[in-house]
Amino acid sequence: MTANTIQPPSSLADLRALVDDFPGPDAGSADAARARDAELTKPAGSLGRLEEIAFWLAGWQGQGGPRAERIQVLVFAGNHGVAARGVSAFPSEVTVQMVANFQSGGAAINQLAAAAGATLDVVALDLDRPTADFTEEPAMNEADCVAAVAQGMASVDAEADLVCIGEMGIANTTVAAALANGLFGGSAADWVGPGTGIDDAGLARKRDAVAAAVDLHRNALGDPLEVLRRLGGREIAAMLGAAVAARYARVPVLVDGFVATAAVAPLHAIAPGTLDHCLASHCSAEPAHRRLMDRLGKQPLLDLDMRLGEASGAAVAASIVRAAALTHTGMATFGDAGVSTGTDK
Amino acid sequence: MTANTIQPPSSLADLRALVDDFPGPDAGSADAARARDAELTKPAGSLGRLEEIAFWLAGWQGQGGPRAERIQVLVFAGNHGVAARGVSAFPSEVTVQMVANFQSGGAAINQLAAAAGATLDVVALDLDRPTADFTEEPAMNEADCVAAVAQGMASVDAEADLVCIGEMGIANTTVAAALANGLFGGSAADWVGPGTGIDDAGLARKRDAVAAAVDLHRNALGDPLEVLRRLGGREIAAMLGAAVAARYARVPVLVDGFVATAAVAPLHAIAPGTLDHCLASHCSAEPAHRRLMDRLGKQPLLDLDMRLGEASGAAVAASIVRAAALTHTGMATFGDAGVSTGTDK
Repeated sequence: MTANTIQPPSSLADLRALVDDFPGPDAGSADAARARDAELTKPAGSLGRLEEIAFWLAGWQGQGGPRAERIQVLVFAGNHGVAARGVSAFPSEVTVQMVANFQSGGAAINQLAAAAGATLDVVALDLDRPTADFTEEPAMNEADCVAAVAQGMASVDAEADLVCIGEMGIANTTVAAALANGLFGGSAADWVGPGTGIDDAGLARKRDAVAAAVDLHRNALGDPLEVLRRLGGREIAAMLGAAVAARYARVPVLVDGFVATAAVAPLHAIAPGTLDHCLASHCSAEPAHRRLMDRLGKQPLLDLDMRLGEASGAAVAASIVRAAALTHTGMATFGDAGVSTGTDK
Repeated sequence: MTANTIQPPSSLADLRALVDDFPGPDAGSADAARARDAELTKPAGSLGRLEEIAFWLAGWQGQGGPRAERIQVLVFAGNHGVAARGVSAFPSEVTVQMVANFQSGGAAINQLAAAAGATLDVVALDLDRPTADFTEEPAMNEADCVAAVAQGMASVDAEADLVCIGEMGIANTTVAAALANGLFGGSAADWVGPGTGIDDAGLARKRDAVAAAVDLHRNALGDPLEVLRRLGGREIAAMLGAAVAARYARVPVLVDGFVATAAVAPLHAIAPGTLDHCLASHCSAEPAHRRLMDRLGKQPLLDLDMRLGEASGAAVAASIVRAAALTHTGMATFGDAGVSTGTDK
């Protein structure tokens, strides 16, 4: 732990206090990046979102930014009681099998992290101890929820320039739909989709499970961290914890797809601005992801019809963030290069 | 030159014969890639467009694909007689200044090519000899046009796994608009935009120039290669030549923004399918680019509000193509990894 990181919370009230006390961006660093950008050998604004990404990195990293050399990909894995309701095309044992696949280098994220020049850390959270079935009781007690948040917080490399947050967990698009529905209302059908590719009967079971869960916990939906505890899961809580730790460590975040976005959504429900250090990496093929990003005011960097999870979309987007940092820091200025600045200036 | 490349044409009729004789993809290689994809440790289809890119690479590369290790970025530069009409925010001397900037490593494309792990080749075409003003006469005679096509053809690394095609040339969004208008009809206003950032008076001059050019050459618009000669430019012809050579060399192509797309559009106007070995890398902020890609049936990989040219969008997209190849070739199969294939299979 470095000086700009924090101690883990011992209760949801502690966690809430951390969120209420989130540090903001370094406006001076962002302004300095804007000033340098205006001198670079290109028409003003011509790098589009790459320019905005450079300013965003600079603001959240503070002095010395923008940088995107040291990139950490974090994949959290968890199992879910609601899987027993037949809401996924795959059985729950696939979670532990895929963690083994991550560890032996055979999964998509191994290749994508390598392609992005990133390190990959996989954090499996009590896979042999699924959460409770949230259609019957809260998914987690407070101690388990807070422990998962703390594990997520501890997983962030506080020296990284960027962290990509993703997940693996059979049944967790059902969990994500329940979280989104609990936080933002609407009907279960608004938030439920085919996930890894379930059939119509499974889709109906998924909708029923989400509707039942949101109804059971309806009196707790006003407290976003209670929604996390009741309708979330261990990998979900860990992703939220990672986003909290990254905020304090000044590490900008790329959030992966539907499940990862739902995991950090309780922060947004606490207060606008709590996700300003997070970029949406891609728009998932899972239909509710776009709706959820709209609620969070996020515009994804990529839209490649991906729906794998594993931080795969975030890892692909990491190359864009790296390109943004490199152009900003490596390009010559008009003065350096002896290039005319145009007749309209 | 390797065995699977071709001799340069000595006339536009020769060039037309090359295009009429374009080789197709290797269906066996694409099918083999599809068969392997079905065995990889991920839900079917879950990598979305990355999967489609892998099949596309495999089909065009033939045996041994998909690969995206050796990537060539090609930037062609040219000057245009129509620039004298005040259609750009920058003076024509910026073309040669930016070529010097490319050569000294100070431009955006230097950083973006490095970020993509690509080599960068810059080909300046007679910058001290602008094309004729196409509002008064054809931009090029046949010999100049064919020479530029041949130079583009000779620039392609026939051993590359992927080539990114882009450009630099003051006034060439005016040229691109004229080409698109000449090939696909509509009005000048449909195809003219602000380019590097011209003011309203300049925009009106741009529209007038395009309308005048298309009217002057109206009797030649039925022949796409005559449109290239009359309304194009040297870097435009070179980009078309590069796409032709890449087709014969089995090198898939990433086309950059509005100008590069307009440069290869005459191939599409000759016959559908001539651009099947080309992917649209990004959607430019130049408003007509989306319209032009729609005409070509192309869906861009990225939409990042970029409008720089220099192959910048193609170089950013190259990382996505590399990610597609690496996941396809590097992932484990369900059998290798001992992962269950799901209850729905």
